[in-house]
Amino acid sequence: MALTAIALNCTLKASDGESSSTDKMIGLLVSELKKKDVDFAGTIRVADYNVKPGVTSDEGEGDDWPELRRRILAADILIFGTPIWLGQPSSIAKRVTERMDAFLSETDEKGRMPSYGKVAVVAVVGNEDGAHHVSAELFQALNDMGWTLPAGAVCYWVGEAMGKTDFQDLPQIPEKVSSTAAMVASNTAHLAGMLKERQYPGVASDE
Amino acid sequence: MALTAIALNCTLKASDGESSSTDKMIGLLVSELKKKDVDFAGTIRVADYNVKPGVTSDEGEGDDWPELRRRILAADILIFGTPIWLGQPSSIAKRVTERMDAFLSETDEKGRMPSYGKVAVVAVVGNEDGAHHVSAELFQALNDMGWTLPAGAVCYWVGEAMGKTDFQDLPQIPEKVSSTAAMVASNTAHLAGMLKERQYPGVASDE
Amino acid sequence: MALTAIALNCTLKASDGESSSTDKMIGLLVSELKKKDVDFAGTIRVADYNVKPGVTSDEGEGDDWPELRRRILAADILIFGTPIWLGQPSSIAKRVTERMDAFLSETDEKGRMPSYGKVAVVAVVGNEDGAHHVSAELFQALNDMGWTLPAGAVCYWVGEAMGKTDFQDLPQIPEKVSSTAAMVASNTAHLAGMLKERQYPGVASDE
Amino acid sequence: MALTAIALNCTLKASDGESSSTDKMIGLLVSELKKKDVDFAGTIRVADYNVKPGVTSDEGEGDDWPELRRRILAADILIFGTPIWLGQPSSIAKRVTERMDAFLSETDEKGRMPSYGKVAVVAVVGNEDGAHHVSAELFQALNDMGWTLPAGAVCYWVGEAMGKTDFQDLPQIPEKVSSTAAMVASNTAHLAGMLKERQYPGVASDE
Repeated sequence: MALTAIALNCTLKASDGESSSTDKMIGLLVSELKKKDVDFAGTIRVADYNVKPGVTSDEGEGDDWPELRRRILAADILIFGTPIWLGQPSSIAKRVTERMDAFLSETDEKGRMPSYGKVAVVAVVGNEDGAHHVSAELFQALNDMGWTLPAGAVCYWVGEAMGKTDFQDLPQIPEKVSSTAAMVASNTAHLAGMLKERQYPGVASDE
Repeated sequence: MALTAIALNCTLKASDGESSSTDKMIGLLVSELKKKDVDFAGTIRVADYNVKPGVTSDEGEGDDWPELRRRILAADILIFGTPIWLGQPSSIAKRVTERMDAFLSETDEKGRMPSYGKVAVVAVVGNEDGAHHVSAELFQALNDMGWTLPAGAVCYWVGEAMGKTDFQDLPQIPEKVSSTAAMVASNTAHLAGMLKERQYPGVASDE
Repeated sequence: MALTAIALNCTLKASDGESSSTDKMIGLLVSELKKKDVDFAGTIRVADYNVKPGVTSDEGEGDDWPELRRRILAADILIFGTPIWLGQPSSIAKRVTERMDAFLSETDEKGRMPSYGKVAVVAVVGNEDGAHHVSAELFQALNDMGWTLPAGAVCYWVGEAMGKTDFQDLPQIPEKVSSTAAMVASNTAHLAGMLKERQYPGVASDE
Repeated sequence: MALTAIALNCTLKASDGESSSTDKMIGLLVSELKKKDVDFAGTIRVADYNVKPGVTSDEGEGDDWPELRRRILAADILIFGTPIWLGQPSSIAKRVTERMDAFLSETDEKGRMPSYGKVAVVAVVGNEDGAHHVSAELFQALNDMGWTLPAGAVCYWVGEAMGKTDFQDLPQIPEKVSSTAAMVASNTAHLAGMLKERQYPGVASDE
């Protein structure tokens, strides 16, 4: 069974024809996932859409989340990419996880959320500091909302304290980042493949 | 293949013949795991041991971590139990994850840490507030150290803000907690079983 | 010198004529601050405005932040109110702190940000769990952006784990919450008064 | 009135005659505080003491906390220094804040904890990543326990992602770190001086 991955880029900036550092990190993971025969369904630049504030799956007229939600749930793997601001995930990343909060009440007859059996990994970049905490916040939010996390579910880069360098401006990708991306992709494809074959059984409400 | 689970109780109190609230939450998860045919290797009350400060796997004379480490890694499933203090995991929980930091340099020829293929879940109790953040801190620390997290990898209880009630003094376990425990156990056993059959392949250093 | 306080309500919902639980907690703090002779400049329901994503003080056409920023900085005290979603501050709260990131480059000749000498406190409500972490995230973001935090700079309420009760639907405000609000207000007014009289001296760049 | 500062070094290593990176960051803050005429009461290397697990002010025989507590509360300013492990404060840092939890029940007749009127700042170093989150965890714990936080209450250094460099091995202290230390010290001395002159009034229980 072929696996499919989709990526979210939660940068604060809408597309302007230029790539972002978050895109570069996502791209690195995607290139490694492709080596594992995972198809890529593209990157959603969330800032290009109108994701309304709220905690339901459809916040009404003009809300682009229903379409994004459909695309995300059509994939087996979610690459959740975000920049770091103030040592924390972006407000757009938070917005997305708030909308996933609705999964809690969208369970099937076995109590399984729509995200069950799907694997999420995190891609984080920043000028300096914050990657571990960003992954902590996202691991908790995504896992609470039903996503499974493979061993080592994050690939990140940040510069030295109070630095200004962007990941995309590095002369080359550091070897540590490359080798981490390869391992993240390997673990992700392995776990997603098993879960696609054998979905969580869930628990019937009368069990 | 039979699965085995082991539990850590990171309460600040050494054993005194009485159970703790953390024990009660661990016990709830264990009873559900047993229904899934998981063997239970017992609960390690960490405060009963001398786990020396440090980030290696053996901090020398008198250090009990090498023995605890061996027991933890002999199991397929880790139930990581902690109380909440100041809205955060206990200092003993932090001590344990610091000792696991050594896994980063204990990889095999395919780059896999000793925790690869093993599943961790979190059991959290407090008088009030802090469970989501405790799970965030532990999810990140455990996942960074190679543990895989099944969908919904936490079972918790806390009381109302600034309350004083202990989980073990509740007249009965709230239904929401019971049903969560059943789902956590089901997801955990399912994922651990698959990973035991098919370990992560890892990445050879020359790939 | 009379002190002035302003409040931010970072609920995900725009005004609809009804009060929110966050409003109720803000109102409690305001009533206590008034007893300390602090004037109240009103609550900004952020969801009613178009606060564009970004990290500058003016993100261009249609951006309401410049006006909100002006109002916030005209006050001596900021009550930063947010609900809890997924155990974390709302995406709107995060949006606001991202916009304050610009303060870092808006320092005067003594290196002081526009927020220097001003005091911030946090008002948090949720159905269950998360208040300590929400205050941690906001304390760090606000303090990094130059706000001073008085002793005990948070007033919060959350219900029992996995509960559904709203703060505004409680039959009465719990005594612990009332007494906390009185102390927060007392500390806030005391500290803000001293800082208004004697602003931080800052550091000249050639010191 | 002369001000006094004391420092905690929460490194995992007991003293061995060599300085630690955390010591170096503490030393930088101390040198700046001395320029503001603050006396320095020394650094407590917590790992050299037996700080027993618990949440009371005296955990009985062999517990060194009562003596450390006395020394900490004799100063006006606390420099709370910690290294970063797994992107989080050290287990020893957490141990210390757990012991401060007792302040909550040690209030005077005006509801003031023993830490009221005292100022805390954080000194953080790590090989890579985690400083913002460490300060968030400590800001929340310290502020909940009654400490006041001046504007910009942290001085930190971390290296590039996944790096190995220690702060104390840098050829020289980065200018950004030096200038931050000067500002932290200036803000700290200013605020501590005012609070020493005019303590928080507190709230009488019958108000």
